[in-house]
Amino acid sequence: MSWLPVPSDHYFSVNNIPFGIISTPSNPTPRPAVAIGEYVLDLQSFTSTTSVSGFSQLPEFTKPEVFTFEKTLNRFASLGRATHRLVRGYLQQVLSSDTPYPEILKDNAEAQEKCLINTNEEEVRMHLPMDIGDYTDFYAGRNHAFNVGALFRGRENAMQPNYEHLPVGYHGRASSVVVSGTRVRRPRGQVMNPASAGSEKVPVLAPCGKLDFELELAAFIGKDSDMGSSVGVDEAGEYLFGVVVMNDWSARDIQAWEYIPLGPFTSKSFATSISSWVVLMDALEPLRARPLERGTKVPLLPYLQESNSESVYDIPLTVSIKTPSGTHKISQTSSSNLLFSFSQMIAHHTVTGCPLRTGDLLGTGTISGTDTQGMGSLLEMSANGTQKVALGESGEVRRFLEDGDVVVLAGGCRKVGVGFGECVGEVLPAQK
Amino acid sequence: MSWLPVPSDHYFSVNNIPFGIISTPSNPTPRPAVAIGEYVLDLQSFTSTTSVSGFSQLPEFTKPEVFTFEKTLNRFASLGRATHRLVRGYLQQVLSSDTPYPEILKDNAEAQEKCLINTNEEEVRMHLPMDIGDYTDFYAGRNHAFNVGALFRGRENAMQPNYEHLPVGYHGRASSVVVSGTRVRRPRGQVMNPASAGSEKVPVLAPCGKLDFELELAAFIGKDSDMGSSVGVDEAGEYLFGVVVMNDWSARDIQAWEYIPLGPFTSKSFATSISSWVVLMDALEPLRARPLERGTKVPLLPYLQESNSESVYDIPLTVSIKTPSGTHKISQTSSSNLLFSFSQMIAHHTVTGCPLRTGDLLGTGTISGTDTQGMGSLLEMSANGTQKVALGESGEVRRFLEDGDVVVLAGGCRKVGVGFGECVGEVLPAQK
Ligand SMILES: [Ca+2]
Ligand SMILES: [Ca+2]
Ligand SMILES: [Mg+2]
Ligand SMILES: [Mg+2]
Ligand code: NI
Repeated sequence: MSWLPVPSDHYFSVNNIPFGIISTPSNPTPRPAVAIGEYVLDLQSFTSTTSVSGFSQLPEFTKPEVFTFEKTLNRFASLGRATHRLVRGYLQQVLSSDTPYPEILKDNAEAQEKCLINTNEEEVRMHLPMDIGDYTDFYAGRNHAFNVGALFRGRENAMQPNYEHLPVGYHGRASSVVVSGTRVRRPRGQVMNPASAGSEKVPVLAPCGKLDFELELAAFIGKDSDMGSSVGVDEAGEYLFGVVVMNDWSARDIQAWEYIPLGPFTSKSFATSISSWVVLMDALEPLRARPLERGTKVPLLPYLQESNSESVYDIPLTVSIKTPSGTHKISQTSSSNLLFSFSQMIAHHTVTGCPLRTGDLLGTGTISGTDTQGMGSLLEMSANGTQKVALGESGEVRRFLEDGDVVVLAGGCRKVGVGFGECVGEVLPAQK
Repeated sequence: MSWLPVPSDHYFSVNNIPFGIISTPSNPTPRPAVAIGEYVLDLQSFTSTTSVSGFSQLPEFTKPEVFTFEKTLNRFASLGRATHRLVRGYLQQVLSSDTPYPEILKDNAEAQEKCLINTNEEEVRMHLPMDIGDYTDFYAGRNHAFNVGALFRGRENAMQPNYEHLPVGYHGRASSVVVSGTRVRRPRGQVMNPASAGSEKVPVLAPCGKLDFELELAAFIGKDSDMGSSVGVDEAGEYLFGVVVMNDWSARDIQAWEYIPLGPFTSKSFATSISSWVVLMDALEPLRARPLERGTKVPLLPYLQESNSESVYDIPLTVSIKTPSGTHKISQTSSSNLLFSFSQMIAHHTVTGCPLRTGDLLGTGTISGTDTQGMGSLLEMSANGTQKVALGESGEVRRFLEDGDVVVLAGGCRKVGVGFGECVGEVLPAQK
């Protein structure tokens, strides 16, 4: 329990302590912070501007400057898992009712005044938490891969031969990753003119007619790996910093026309939204769960065999669409619907020697459950636009996203008091 | 003509003035420079440490600090085409026999001593010239696309329906782009066990057995574009900074197993080498040429229709493999073998609203001519390993690259005195 008024089932309870980058009207410089309930602890002020540094009772933390002169979390992330654990644990202590250091914040009105922001009283703007060198998107949500494969190739041929043997993935576009709240313009792009089907294909330039979301988790890398060497699957956890919820916006009609033979390109690179607060790996430990079972008897190659059988996380995830009529939940699933873990993704990503860098972002791929109430994309829910998806009891329906729709992805476990909060994006009309 | 002893048919003649990042034993800090013949002009020293600044006769250039405190060319690149033209033109004047400013360098022994490095006397180490935010690789070499398509699908089905209508491309891995001279470890990765063909596919982890190069040009972006808006094809030239030769190392056996359905991933992300000196767009103007003719009567969509019909460059390119027996040229072609220009790539890349950033790298895709002496990859030359490729008269043959092979890509036009120099990489054995 915290001495701050934070319910224990809040996503940002004292069990979480997620890190982010904030700015405020009174201090527009982006700077690191942690979230605690409806409050934000400004780590720049906490570190430097109180009469006694907030970290004075943590002498083992020798680099508090990562919170004072940095506009991203990259430098903090690069200090390694032991330091993340140390700092998060200390902040949990400082914020706990039975804190051993009441003089730091609990009984220090001046420090509270300078470092604590009540988000209900002062506007806090969130920024991209990390400088992202490379963004990779995997395809490890097997139910999604099956649903999509069945849609286009039939149930018998839904899965490709490589799928069970490696985490299929592709390089995404780092420059278009944006923080939750950023509005997303409907892309216009090259799509096949349906009238030309059958004869020679003739494309047209048009606003995307099949704009979709993709519900994913994504992990930030917190340690560089060397070019030409591979990270072992059981040491890969040391390379992880934290996790966010991600919306990999997708233009299905553009994708269908462009993706052969080199994969998705302009259909995915117009925007990818992530939730603002990075939940550190340690905070997710109580949520560990087993991944999906493989469908083949051929064993995984040893470089992908992980010692910990609870290699993914069982975190409730929801998708809602907000329209003028209200907020309508259209999907509910769990992040355990994955065939491969982040550690396996890292082991595979580096198997040929690709260097990882602190700040790299790895998406899981779309997460879908097995039933129609738990799908991670409209492509699946509407069977590629052939069926209507009801928005609750509103009478509204969707096949794909419409202008003005606000897509709200959310994830977290109230019982544990750990969650990501929301990843929100409003669809703007296409450019003229 | 330069007052320095530089032959007019040198790739780095006074007609070129390419920019790069150097360090030297006496000053190990990476810093900007230009190449002039076998000499290097250290721009940090030229700007700051001579008694009179080297740019004192160019008052219009208001930001010489881009050469003194920067370890990449990004800030210089971001100043825009007009400034690139101004600075390059001024340096050409300073280095010309009939320079209007002899006091700056030609008749200034002290300045020469401080700024000019003779690369035959002092070792100059080259660094990656730009901080690369995102790297995109296109597939605009139509002869290559046809050769590869014919190899795997037959000549009748070689080309995919979208190929003539848009520059096919995919996101590459920025973290594995390295500068010429960097040695490249043969990747090990997941490949299909040939013994398992026909029954259920069983992969193995093995050193790549089909390591290949890809001969490409690549352009650096020199201007940011806004998310959600597109760059017009006729204004795209303003977004270009300069061009290098690129070797997009490729692991063909890993690629064949992994690439369905999302494109190349670990088979391409272990290394991509670029030549060290960035040739500015203005230096390439005399080499403009027409691209390949499209094979369809369906017109290009207007957003890809370029006013300048000479939209690509006719630059001789060669591929050599250096072994203990000597350096063997195995291919000679021209960079005009492209269906799409850099401007068209930019227009398409941004059509859905993807933001470009200064420092982004755009590869053309493998450049092959139409005859067997002008192919840009061993995949094509050896017909996927089914035929032997002779290394000159040495008696040595290759199907794919062997450990110890040094791949040397080179490009330039001696008549114009403009070239890229070499892009070199030695193949190291796979990790154990
Ligand atoms: Ca995705
Ligand atoms: Ca390539
Ligand atoms: Mg995306
Ligand atoms: Mg490559
Ligand atoms: Ni990237």
